Amino acid sequence: MDQTNLPEVAVFRHRIKVRWSDCDPAQIAYTGRIPYFALEAIDAWWESVTGTDWFRLNVDRGMGAPFVHLSVDFRAPVTPRAPLDCEVRLTRLGESSIGFAVRGLQDGTLCFEGRFVEAFVIAHPMRKTAIPAGIRARMEPYLVAETAR
Amino acid sequence: MDQTNLPEVAVFRHRIKVRWSDCDPAQIAYTGRIPYFALEAIDAWWESVTGTDWFRLNVDRGMGAPFVHLSVDFRAPVTPRAPLDCEVRLTRLGESSIGFAVRGLQDGTLCFEGRFVEAFVIAHPMRKTAIPAGIRARMEPYLVAETAR
Amino acid sequence: MDQTNLPEVAVFRHRIKVRWSDCDPAQIAYTGRIPYFALEAIDAWWESVTGTDWFRLNVDRGMGAPFVHLSVDFRAPVTPRAPLDCEVRLTRLGESSIGFAVRGLQDGTLCFEGRFVEAFVIAHPMRKTAIPAGIRARMEPYLVAETAR
Amino acid sequence: MDQTNLPEVAVFRHRIKVRWSDCDPAQIAYTGRIPYFALEAIDAWWESVTGTDWFRLNVDRGMGAPFVHLSVDFRAPVTPRAPLDCEVRLTRLGESSIGFAVRGLQDGTLCFEGRFVEAFVIAHPMRKTAIPAGIRARMEPYLVAETAR
Repeated sequence: MDQTNLPEVAVFRHRIKVRWSDCDPAQIAYTGRIPYFALEAIDAWWESVTGTDWFRLNVDRGMGAPFVHLSVDFRAPVTPRAPLDCEVRLTRLGESSIGFAVRGLQDGTLCFEGRFVEAFVIAHPMRKTAIPAGIRARMEPYLVAETAR
Repeated sequence: MDQTNLPEVAVFRHRIKVRWSDCDPAQIAYTGRIPYFALEAIDAWWESVTGTDWFRLNVDRGMGAPFVHLSVDFRAPVTPRAPLDCEVRLTRLGESSIGFAVRGLQDGTLCFEGRFVEAFVIAHPMRKTAIPAGIRARMEPYLVAETAR
Repeated sequence: MDQTNLPEVAVFRHRIKVRWSDCDPAQIAYTGRIPYFALEAIDAWWESVTGTDWFRLNVDRGMGAPFVHLSVDFRAPVTPRAPLDCEVRLTRLGESSIGFAVRGLQDGTLCFEGRFVEAFVIAHPMRKTAIPAGIRARMEPYLVAETAR
Repeated sequence: MDQTNLPEVAVFRHRIKVRWSDCDPAQIAYTGRIPYFALEAIDAWWESVTGTDWFRLNVDRGMGAPFVHLSVDFRAPVTPRAPLDCEVRLTRLGESSIGFAVRGLQDGTLCFEGRFVEAFVIAHPMRKTAIPAGIRARMEPYLVAETAR
């Protein structure tokens, strides 16, 4: 994966403290927690990049961005022994769909990598709509080529 | 998806009651909960088919089956308004890997479908191992052809 | 605790399947999960007794019942080795407040007991209100004397 | 609550970012999440004060500190609109029991306050034991008088 030419601005980093409560009797973060971690990193990306987050988008603006897809490959266990550094990259910006690649690393070791796709919607009743121009404009500088992921 | 010839035995059904605590301010089950639901259905499949579950497998037998992959396509929102009926099918039984297809339906509507792959391991220290013969023998009758999923 | 004369109708029983995902590396249900279990039992009580649950109460009727207090004493670990049988008793029915006692047992052993108090509210904006007469009428037969808990 | 004379060292502050995933359809953090937040603050206190946390204590040292009691009074809703500032005070240090008071504030408003008691144990099999001298010595400077809480 050649990231030599990837503009630094395109990578958003979000650090998570993995805790006792995240772990199962195998002494590693429970499988179901990993999508939570990645989703938390994407919500943090939203707040950083667009100035809003899912809560404000939904509650204050009557819009939403429900997920239509997620996939995760688990490469190494996640544990509380090191911070979990999540990298979020915007890989797709369609008319209403928004795609992310998220990688999770601990001490430089890749623990998981995943893909996530949201669809922009009007919230009540839920129906697909185009991403508002203001939000799109803030996202565009973060769009990376698929090959760069 | 033609399931006409799928032997009934191969489909394990697990019903989940979706609750207030599963829902987010969009008034639907939170995205991160869906993998939890599917994983719960797979754990229930284990208990039903093999007579053990992840807890007993790990704690009593020193083995485990951590996930190496999961992917979910979200087709319709999941809500507390109807039971969530999960269908679990065993789609792969490798030397150490175990693949599942899970579909979630409410009132007959497909809400999500996903794929999940576990790898059988010795627990401490974690290393891949072959699925024990006794467990494999119980799983085999449930293996369905990929095309039948 | 003499429950000899407690009318059977007053005790609502709700069975929970404790799972791998509920457990921490100590191989028991994580402390934070216990309030979840008790709250789930109370939500099930609502549905059984009043015909509505927190989701429908909030989303369909614009009302709610947020908690003002909870306390739990942990008597024995909760594990996946047996069903968790929760007993819910209504111990207080004020003008807007609703009090519950919840006990959790596994194989007849008391694992936890707790007290929970909700306050009935109009949802948006949130303000305390009297419990509607129809809901109160359904709850009243379940009210037990404090001493009976 | 007079905290005029409370030594500053005794108060540990832990900031939590409340998120979409923490909230229910009432658009506030779900009741069951509040104990999680308080427990997270206590786990962070452990790490800061003793140099270990629940994970390392259990997995690396074969000891644990399961909770025997928790109680929470909810004063105001917790939302994603402001950071959740948790204050942790050590209020009891018995031979094996450890008591905490935790307060959660958003923008200076008290949202909840609770009490939590752990019992120090040998992990396998679980039995109560005295807090090791090294850990106790690190905790003692943080002990505050009950009246100061």
